[in-house]
Amino acid sequence: MNFEITNLGQCKISSPLITKFPSTDFGFVSDTEKILYDVKRYDAGNENEKSKICFEKAGPRKMIFYDPARIRVAIITSGGLCPGINNVIRSIVMESHYRYGVQNILGIRYGFMGLNPATNYEPVELTPHMVRDAHKMGGTILGSSRGGTEDMESIVDTLERLYVNILYVIGGDGSLRAAHDVAVIAEKRNLKLSVIGVPKTIDNDVSYIQRTFGFETAFSRAVDSIYSAHVEAEGAPNGIGLVKLMGRYSGFIAANSALAMNDVNFVLIPEVLFDLYGENGFLHHLEQRLRRRGHAVICVAEGAGQNFLVTDQVKQERDASGNIKLADIGVYLRDTINKYFKSIEMAVNLKYIDPSYMIRSAPANPNDAIFCALLGQYAVHAGMAGKTDMIVGQWNNIFTHIPIKMVTSKRNQVNPQSRFWHNVLEATGQPANMLNHHQL
Amino acid sequence: MNFEITNLGQCKISSPLITKFPSTDFGFVSDTEKILYDVKRYDAGNENEKSKICFEKAGPRKMIFYDPARIRVAIITSGGLCPGINNVIRSIVMESHYRYGVQNILGIRYGFMGLNPATNYEPVELTPHMVRDAHKMGGTILGSSRGGTEDMESIVDTLERLYVNILYVIGGDGSLRAAHDVAVIAEKRNLKLSVIGVPKTIDNDVSYIQRTFGFETAFSRAVDSIYSAHVEAEGAPNGIGLVKLMGRYSGFIAANSALAMNDVNFVLIPEVLFDLYGENGFLHHLEQRLRRRGHAVICVAEGAGQNFLVTDQVKQERDASGNIKLADIGVYLRDTINKYFKSIEMAVNLKYIDPSYMIRSAPANPNDAIFCALLGQYAVHAGMAGKTDMIVGQWNNIFTHIPIKMVTSKRNQVNPQSRFWHNVLEATGQPANMLNHHQL
Amino acid sequence: MNFEITNLGQCKISSPLITKFPSTDFGFVSDTEKILYDVKRYDAGNENEKSKICFEKAGPRKMIFYDPARIRVAIITSGGLCPGINNVIRSIVMESHYRYGVQNILGIRYGFMGLNPATNYEPVELTPHMVRDAHKMGGTILGSSRGGTEDMESIVDTLERLYVNILYVIGGDGSLRAAHDVAVIAEKRNLKLSVIGVPKTIDNDVSYIQRTFGFETAFSRAVDSIYSAHVEAEGAPNGIGLVKLMGRYSGFIAANSALAMNDVNFVLIPEVLFDLYGENGFLHHLEQRLRRRGHAVICVAEGAGQNFLVTDQVKQERDASGNIKLADIGVYLRDTINKYFKSIEMAVNLKYIDPSYMIRSAPANPNDAIFCALLGQYAVHAGMAGKTDMIVGQWNNIFTHIPIKMVTSKRNQVNPQSRFWHNVLEATGQPANMLNHHQL
Amino acid sequence: MNFEITNLGQCKISSPLITKFPSTDFGFVSDTEKILYDVKRYDAGNENEKSKICFEKAGPRKMIFYDPARIRVAIITSGGLCPGINNVIRSIVMESHYRYGVQNILGIRYGFMGLNPATNYEPVELTPHMVRDAHKMGGTILGSSRGGTEDMESIVDTLERLYVNILYVIGGDGSLRAAHDVAVIAEKRNLKLSVIGVPKTIDNDVSYIQRTFGFETAFSRAVDSIYSAHVEAEGAPNGIGLVKLMGRYSGFIAANSALAMNDVNFVLIPEVLFDLYGENGFLHHLEQRLRRRGHAVICVAEGAGQNFLVTDQVKQERDASGNIKLADIGVYLRDTINKYFKSIEMAVNLKYIDPSYMIRSAPANPNDAIFCALLGQYAVHAGMAGKTDMIVGQWNNIFTHIPIKMVTSKRNQVNPQSRFWHNVLEATGQPANMLNHHQL
Repeated sequence: MNFEITNLGQCKISSPLITKFPSTDFGFVSDTEKILYDVKRYDAGNENEKSKICFEKAGPRKMIFYDPARIRVAIITSGGLCPGINNVIRSIVMESHYRYGVQNILGIRYGFMGLNPATNYEPVELTPHMVRDAHKMGGTILGSSRGGTEDMESIVDTLERLYVNILYVIGGDGSLRAAHDVAVIAEKRNLKLSVIGVPKTIDNDVSYIQRTFGFETAFSRAVDSIYSAHVEAEGAPNGIGLVKLMGRYSGFIAANSALAMNDVNFVLIPEVLFDLYGENGFLHHLEQRLRRRGHAVICVAEGAGQNFLVTDQVKQERDASGNIKLADIGVYLRDTINKYFKSIEMAVNLKYIDPSYMIRSAPANPNDAIFCALLGQYAVHAGMAGKTDMIVGQWNNIFTHIPIKMVTSKRNQVNPQSRFWHNVLEATGQPANMLNHHQL
Repeated sequence: MNFEITNLGQCKISSPLITKFPSTDFGFVSDTEKILYDVKRYDAGNENEKSKICFEKAGPRKMIFYDPARIRVAIITSGGLCPGINNVIRSIVMESHYRYGVQNILGIRYGFMGLNPATNYEPVELTPHMVRDAHKMGGTILGSSRGGTEDMESIVDTLERLYVNILYVIGGDGSLRAAHDVAVIAEKRNLKLSVIGVPKTIDNDVSYIQRTFGFETAFSRAVDSIYSAHVEAEGAPNGIGLVKLMGRYSGFIAANSALAMNDVNFVLIPEVLFDLYGENGFLHHLEQRLRRRGHAVICVAEGAGQNFLVTDQVKQERDASGNIKLADIGVYLRDTINKYFKSIEMAVNLKYIDPSYMIRSAPANPNDAIFCALLGQYAVHAGMAGKTDMIVGQWNNIFTHIPIKMVTSKRNQVNPQSRFWHNVLEATGQPANMLNHHQL
Repeated sequence: MNFEITNLGQCKISSPLITKFPSTDFGFVSDTEKILYDVKRYDAGNENEKSKICFEKAGPRKMIFYDPARIRVAIITSGGLCPGINNVIRSIVMESHYRYGVQNILGIRYGFMGLNPATNYEPVELTPHMVRDAHKMGGTILGSSRGGTEDMESIVDTLERLYVNILYVIGGDGSLRAAHDVAVIAEKRNLKLSVIGVPKTIDNDVSYIQRTFGFETAFSRAVDSIYSAHVEAEGAPNGIGLVKLMGRYSGFIAANSALAMNDVNFVLIPEVLFDLYGENGFLHHLEQRLRRRGHAVICVAEGAGQNFLVTDQVKQERDASGNIKLADIGVYLRDTINKYFKSIEMAVNLKYIDPSYMIRSAPANPNDAIFCALLGQYAVHAGMAGKTDMIVGQWNNIFTHIPIKMVTSKRNQVNPQSRFWHNVLEATGQPANMLNHHQL
Repeated sequence: MNFEITNLGQCKISSPLITKFPSTDFGFVSDTEKILYDVKRYDAGNENEKSKICFEKAGPRKMIFYDPARIRVAIITSGGLCPGINNVIRSIVMESHYRYGVQNILGIRYGFMGLNPATNYEPVELTPHMVRDAHKMGGTILGSSRGGTEDMESIVDTLERLYVNILYVIGGDGSLRAAHDVAVIAEKRNLKLSVIGVPKTIDNDVSYIQRTFGFETAFSRAVDSIYSAHVEAEGAPNGIGLVKLMGRYSGFIAANSALAMNDVNFVLIPEVLFDLYGENGFLHHLEQRLRRRGHAVICVAEGAGQNFLVTDQVKQERDASGNIKLADIGVYLRDTINKYFKSIEMAVNLKYIDPSYMIRSAPANPNDAIFCALLGQYAVHAGMAGKTDMIVGQWNNIFTHIPIKMVTSKRNQVNPQSRFWHNVLEATGQPANMLNHHQL
């Protein structure tokens, strides 16, 4: 961790601020206000370098960089669906229009592909009327896509051609990296072009922000699948309910839905290696559970157990967003479990549930809806203040600014030593360690 | 159709009735009361043979066959899950106990396997207290299984050994056939053993009954998947949402959910053949739709398009219930669509949703809950009256008795010439005919 | 009952049919097709006068009365909200536009008030695009109102002035009577003006039709209130959960929701008189229940127990729809129960729930959605065929035409001698009779 | 604020710790670990007295005070219902039993009344089996009540008689004050009796803790009522939907549900005074809204506008929990609005919705379910460690210990100067100030 209390000034276009906040707002925030990263202290006192680390506080600035009457802003949604995207779009439009008076708001169609001069996707004009009820629907009214970021220079060409001053990027890891590239190129070209990111990852695995939008809705929906898996498991002799949930690199959705429902017996996540075979392997423990109780529910994050699947060749494949293509652990586990029990001549009834699209296409639940609305507002405050190359996050329940580089530098993961994971183990009753020879 | 107003007497054990209905009930039904099969008439009059066909009316009989204080009844649930099974179980227990005073009620575990002397599944005593809240959960509290019906004689041995007088079978086609076998063997052995079926098929494809329990809950839940498919389809360039729904031999769930939501563009069902390729084939129409509107939602019943998949060898495979194993049209369609558009170099984004287990494990919705409660009550009335080898159904909104043989003789299917299917075509906008050379 | 197989010809404008059905539809229905009213038969045969009674069958006619290219139709929604109104509106618009090619469709604002020359409510043009997603929302996109029917002649003036040929009235008892008046006046004036009603009563109390739209959604939603009442009742010493549900003259909603949930101990409906005080009165039985079990759930239909409340003066008051204003039995019962237990010094905790508006504003559930869509289609078929002064209903699961006069002549009610009510009594465990001296 | 980093040691029974944590847990927390109260900093640095204020960190202690094998613990639920109570009960039982090995767990019936020697409510033994599915239901399996705290000495007598060592109190303000009294008396009597509170207030108005359980579920449910109010308001000429929500002293539920849905035009809360009449009064603004848009939705917290209602006499009335009885602002507002518009001869259609019991009886949503489970676990950690006279809370997303006195000393309220309230104003479009003469 190498960031400090002052290092966030760089997220700003280095020109003088030109105008006042247009409405009779209050509660302005100054660039000097910071939010502490670490809140743990000891009686003895532990004031050290780490305890000085801070985030810049988000919020409306008294002086803004752009003239609302003249600028044009654009919104882009990129990558897979996630509950709440439309809420963020709606909030950016409403805040830009009603609080700042921005008249020109473009919606880019289908992610960065929509900025690619080669495609025919025309941007749409976004108005408050158009987005009024957008938050009641799942998905994205703009459409999304992976990829389209092969030639960043020509994307910035398009933005120049469209006279865009602020680009709001609602997207995941790959999209934020592209957003950073846009910001860097814009600076080189000396453009008045701010790039503000709103991190969209249903997996909640963004570092330095406590929560990503849509995550709560996602694990809440996942609970329904676990209910079904449990009912199916109990409804058959040696019934096994196997649910694959999202989580490419982190098991937060799987772990949280297991905690919320308490009907899961095994949670398998990318952060915790496990053996399949052997006397301390997963299959042996599953067998024990079935012999003891007659049914079992398993919840596996899509990124778990990739070591069983990935060959060198597969490792190279990436999707259009640049994400490594994962082999399907759900299907692999389903087949492996069935094969194992066939080999020991124990009849089992496995039901496999993959609710992914039904989860990510859901509308935001009320708590996420509020969060999305605020994210959108703070994004607009940042954009209008001339910030750039940053995302809007939240830390210690306060909205913050963070440089994109920092956010994309590493992922947040479940810490297998944490109380959180310990609670999951306790809720499931699964062994803390399913490796033979205890090779931790 | 070869049944008439008098042909249902055979569903009765031919011994004298021995006791009075125990409670102060009213509204008794006599065996002479019938329900007309056909209600369509013409001004000219169309009284003919068909208009005389009737069902026996269900309901409590003043004189009952079994002495409630002495008998023992058993309940069995067999085959796949379906919303409402627990409601029917609960209702049979409550009605037997509270209205008739039956003290001995057994729950057979895991379907006919639980009557197989080779298994170790002990029956459970069912009491009103045990089943009090069962209807609030999906699945079956007794457990279910396919098969176990290889040796019907030994199953009847078990029933004799357990002193069972009435066996309530909540099951599908295969299970009802087994129930019929039990009744036949019981008659041969001269046992006082009634067999009363409650048809359980989520597909709603039972002949001579207007509705099976759980069907409404099922298509209502399927609507959620269609919502997701629609959101996904709209959220990507050339987005395709493909939902596979239940329906081995009939497309009622797929058709009803499409009617309820109106966001589906193609419904593919077993009753309507279609070509994949060719200028009037499905893929061509799908391509047209995408070129016109940029997205499409497809809903396919699991039994549709089996002609593309079934080879002679596969045809022979059956599952433990004796059902022919279907090849997976959902996965086949997904792959075929992707291959087709790759071949014509048109980029599409297909999202495949298979919600099956999430639908069938749901608790009954309120309307199904009432229906299940009544089915259970009428089953008990029939059983106590000494009826046998029959199921409880509904026709023209009145509960009826039907011989099992008649019910299992043929399936109910969507009639492609009906107004119902015409309405589906209209709701989706799909062509009535997707066969080349119009080979109807 | 004085209607017969031929008496429905009068629901037709007596002019020659002028054109063919415009689309390549099939399955046309002829005016000679009828649906039997009574399906009960006895072995001995019971063919008598009653068994000849029929309804006219609904459906598209090969020859239609109006020229789709020239006519103008109007839709009106009147009275209180009910789930599914928007679905019916949407279906009428879609069917008129896409199947018949009607180009002019007006939406009248706020019920008959919108046809009152004195108001400023301009009709809106309805297009398929406008109503595309209307069915996803509760309420009515046209707005509704009670009353406005004081001067029917001037309402017909307005319809003339607007060149309306078919008026679709989605409304309750009072509105249908007004619709009848429109039809009568139109006939007198010799106008080509059909009036087609779609009966809207959340209470399901329309005679000669088996089900009204929105009713299932309503009692399904009511189940949630009963759940809450039950939780509240169990959560306090001598807890009483009291739920007031809709049902001005009939207890169908209260009875069905009690059947669906099984947590209700007393259902009070307009059809069954009860005493409050005395040793067989409701309060005594409630007291017994509390002493025995410590909590109780009561479900009261708004029209129950009006005899305790209505004085001669109150009897005269009517709302704008002409409905008698009911005194509030819910509040009365709440206060009376509290007073009673205070008088006998028994501490109780009563929680009163009145979910009315939350139920009637709900969107239609999937089953109601399909029903509404079909009602709308059949209404259009009837209108285009030149029928008038009739409503679209359903009997023995087949859609029918019924003269408005017949429908408004009497209400459907719960029959206290029926098996249905008997099942409710059994589900609640309440006494069949809560009158002292058994004054039935 | 007069608490500091060291002042929480007093929440501990001052005896030596006697045993080790029984399981192979990890991640122990020491009493020296603290959580900072204030995370806001400035570039210039603002380290002052306030920035040293801390909470004690919650979590398992390596050394525990009580011997799990010998102690007896009791759980009590007191006051009104709130989503999640059963989850907390379940968690305390599971954690005590499985992680610590506690064998004796009592459930006190109906709050403090169940500890009153005069009542006949026997405690129930709580086992893991009994509470296994409790979290799937709303309400409290123990029952609750207000009051019963008149004679605290005799309540402690009962606890002594029952040999209770740890009393877990899940209750609101009044109950926590009673819990504090128990702790004080226990200390005087030199009992080994810890009192651990889990603050239960659906209003989320507890100071020094960032969130109370059930609050999110509550405002999420309230959104449904707002939906209904909006549908009703749009469905009638000059339609007004008026929703009364919980919030005796704070408007968090009303404000959050308005933020989540965006269909509310006026939020009235206890923290913001408003005039009814006059040119800047609420009624005038409501009238303007209706004239402009034809409908309006109002959301009022139960504690708002009490100044219009409270007379000196009423002020004295308190319910059994000692809470001041509020006059019903919902009914008052309904009548006042109707009267006002009658007086200006403007016809309006007001629909009043009071969903209170339907909200508070709901089961916890998944996010609250996790929170409740953790609260229960941390409560047990505190109890077993010999802490007393404290509650378990959360601050900066970390679980903390807080002395009961501090928590009950003042309430948390919506700050009308905050960005949060500003966002509400913006979402509703209501004036920031509805007082005449701007008497802020």
